[in-house]
Amino acid sequence: MSKQKLIVIGGDAAGMSAASKIRREHPDREIIVFERQNHTSYAACGIPYFIAGQVSSAENLVAREPEVFRKKQHIDVRTQQEVTEIDTGNHRVRVTDLSNRKTYWEEWDTLLIATGASPIVPDVEGMDAEGIFALSTLQSGINTFRYMQAERPKKAVIVGGGYIGIEMAEALLERNMQVSLIDMAPQLMTTLDEDMAGPIADYMRDKGIAVFLGEKLSHFEKDREGKIKAVVTDKQTLEADLVILGMGVKPNSKLAAGDGIRLGAADAVGVNKKLETSHPGIWAAGDCADSFHILKKQQVFIPLGTTANKHGMVAGINISGGNTEFPGVLGTAITKFLDLEISRTGLSEKEAKKMGITYRSNTIESPTFSGYYPGTGKMAVKLLVEEKTGRLLGGQITGKVAAAKRIDTIVAAISAGMTAKDIVDLDLSYAPPFSPVWDPVQTAARTLL
Amino acid sequence: MSKQKLIVIGGDAAGMSAASKIRREHPDREIIVFERQNHTSYAACGIPYFIAGQVSSAENLVAREPEVFRKKQHIDVRTQQEVTEIDTGNHRVRVTDLSNRKTYWEEWDTLLIATGASPIVPDVEGMDAEGIFALSTLQSGINTFRYMQAERPKKAVIVGGGYIGIEMAEALLERNMQVSLIDMAPQLMTTLDEDMAGPIADYMRDKGIAVFLGEKLSHFEKDREGKIKAVVTDKQTLEADLVILGMGVKPNSKLAAGDGIRLGAADAVGVNKKLETSHPGIWAAGDCADSFHILKKQQVFIPLGTTANKHGMVAGINISGGNTEFPGVLGTAITKFLDLEISRTGLSEKEAKKMGITYRSNTIESPTFSGYYPGTGKMAVKLLVEEKTGRLLGGQITGKVAAAKRIDTIVAAISAGMTAKDIVDLDLSYAPPFSPVWDPVQTAARTLL
Repeated sequence: MSKQKLIVIGGDAAGMSAASKIRREHPDREIIVFERQNHTSYAACGIPYFIAGQVSSAENLVAREPEVFRKKQHIDVRTQQEVTEIDTGNHRVRVTDLSNRKTYWEEWDTLLIATGASPIVPDVEGMDAEGIFALSTLQSGINTFRYMQAERPKKAVIVGGGYIGIEMAEALLERNMQVSLIDMAPQLMTTLDEDMAGPIADYMRDKGIAVFLGEKLSHFEKDREGKIKAVVTDKQTLEADLVILGMGVKPNSKLAAGDGIRLGAADAVGVNKKLETSHPGIWAAGDCADSFHILKKQQVFIPLGTTANKHGMVAGINISGGNTEFPGVLGTAITKFLDLEISRTGLSEKEAKKMGITYRSNTIESPTFSGYYPGTGKMAVKLLVEEKTGRLLGGQITGKVAAAKRIDTIVAAISAGMTAKDIVDLDLSYAPPFSPVWDPVQTAARTLL
Repeated sequence: MSKQKLIVIGGDAAGMSAASKIRREHPDREIIVFERQNHTSYAACGIPYFIAGQVSSAENLVAREPEVFRKKQHIDVRTQQEVTEIDTGNHRVRVTDLSNRKTYWEEWDTLLIATGASPIVPDVEGMDAEGIFALSTLQSGINTFRYMQAERPKKAVIVGGGYIGIEMAEALLERNMQVSLIDMAPQLMTTLDEDMAGPIADYMRDKGIAVFLGEKLSHFEKDREGKIKAVVTDKQTLEADLVILGMGVKPNSKLAAGDGIRLGAADAVGVNKKLETSHPGIWAAGDCADSFHILKKQQVFIPLGTTANKHGMVAGINISGGNTEFPGVLGTAITKFLDLEISRTGLSEKEAKKMGITYRSNTIESPTFSGYYPGTGKMAVKLLVEEKTGRLLGGQITGKVAAAKRIDTIVAAISAGMTAKDIVDLDLSYAPPFSPVWDPVQTAARTLL
């Protein structure tokens, strides 16, 4: 067997999971990881909680430093090295050492593209103002934090009402800032249906966030020093000394596309269930790649930390000579705004309609625990079932204490092809501090029978 | 159609769920419910939290008063009426009015036995001492509470380390009592395996409960006034001015057995999946009846509130002319001692061994949330899979904040016949305040692959 040299582009969840798996299976294989930033394997999802001050240091978000990969796993992690070209014909990548701008070529036998995703940045006037931050890498979180420490901003505007927008609204509120949030959609969290998203906006307003929906970003205004001064929408001008962009992300797939590797859903790197790209010996994993959707039966682009880790595991097993497939996603997600928990999985009404599926849906309200138990909160559960088969298609949950993690029961049920009746039949756990006698998920299922 | 008169014996969860369902389907049917106590439809599971003072009044535990059933649903609920005989030949029951000791017969077309279960009371010397309480009915909870108010006991001994024992240990600790707990088994919570139960005893001791395992109750000592003075075991004498019995329950099935209705598992009333007894037109539901165990493929006696509610629903549908089956139980249970959560479902190692199943099992430790997120706690997950098929057989969880309700994911997985691999594949929810990237249930499943 030749030396079987593996090159990984990108040192975060997907890349490092795969590299670690391959190292465990092949102690002697040469493994090089190119990472253009300084950090590896960090929890990007934790950045809002670092900015809120709930996580005391950015280092806490790093699962494993490059040095540890080098010493303990003999993985040649090269930080500050940017891959600028893939040459599939010659099985090599061109690398720029960002510390000295020197470039060099490195050959591979196997290549794993794990370049992640980047925040979408609007092409508008004033975008170059100081004080506008899009959160993605750990470094971007650190930069935002340092800016806040130095400038002590008081008025923040968040552009985008998705997961990052909502989590950052909480974080900046925790920092005692005056926070506005704008979104061009008529609702927050477009992965939820409008009836479930409405109360979230109400709650955020209750807690002091100025939420403006159906309002489109026009441009940014700077002061004389080039710092952000205001966010201008199609309806108003909002003063701001800090702007957070939460407008979604796009896959970092240009590098792959440059040499003809096929792009898939939303221009992410197209992969099959083994996470192979269109080119033999070239794999892709994590936020840069697309994923199979279990219910839509097609590739989608839903970049998330859990998926990146699973991608890394699957690619690692297959590159190591194993044979496994990525099982697919259901678009499961969970977040919270202060004590209001939010989760979803499977198809929303919007998605079911788009797919031409005839469905029934219902939303119930329930206490999270027994109604008499102290600390119980309200929660809402929405379930969708296919009209024809009764099969569960999706679920959405909002509510207080311990509401949202119940989405996992729905995830398991959808994955198993269960009907609403099957959910009612489940022997779920009950005790007064944990649940009403009928778990709210079952109560929702009962109303669909 | 004749008047189709229904008699229900027992006015708690199973009986009243069934009666309500039948009323909804048949507005004109005559429905009589005999209840020997004063209360209907109460949450017996809430009694420890009432005694702890966390639920301010016993009335809070009552879901619906007899008066409401009478007025709103035209169900003839007769409290303080004890059925003392079933006469299957003549389709009638003999009833004693406990208020005046008069007896009378009442005929039925359909009979539902929902007589519940009673706490096991040991046949030992001193059992008649004042200050010994076995919790079952709401009235027993009220009696215990009143005794505590009047006598201000300071030293409690709990006999039995199951769910009630652990919940009452918490409750009495909350009442600032000195609490001892004895159990003849070498571990607490015998529905868990020893390795999972051990840390629960350690934690209870840490919090000030004197836990004595492998210690058998010998008898009780009374003072001159006939009040409890001490609990004597085979190893020591424990001073006590309050004793709580948590030695399990036995089905109230003597009434049914008296007229030859077949008894099933653990002498509970034997039922089929439709909840029919051995006698046509006679049904049984709730804690007095046995239940089908999905994995053991046989009837078992595991009386629980959720099961009683499901039994009531199934019996109600079938008596109303519908056709449904009770899906079975997995022995799912959940409880907590202070902030230590405990849950289990499916087969334990002990049970798998007894069934002659070759299995593999593993226990992992994990943080409940992202390790860096404030408030995260430790949890342990134990999973069992069948060696031959990889199919999941059971799960046990102990741990802090938000640990235990994850058992529901395992419940759904077992019910669907999933393997450990299927669990790893689930698109479970992740965000730092809710879970590590790999949910602890998945981490446990991964170690079994």
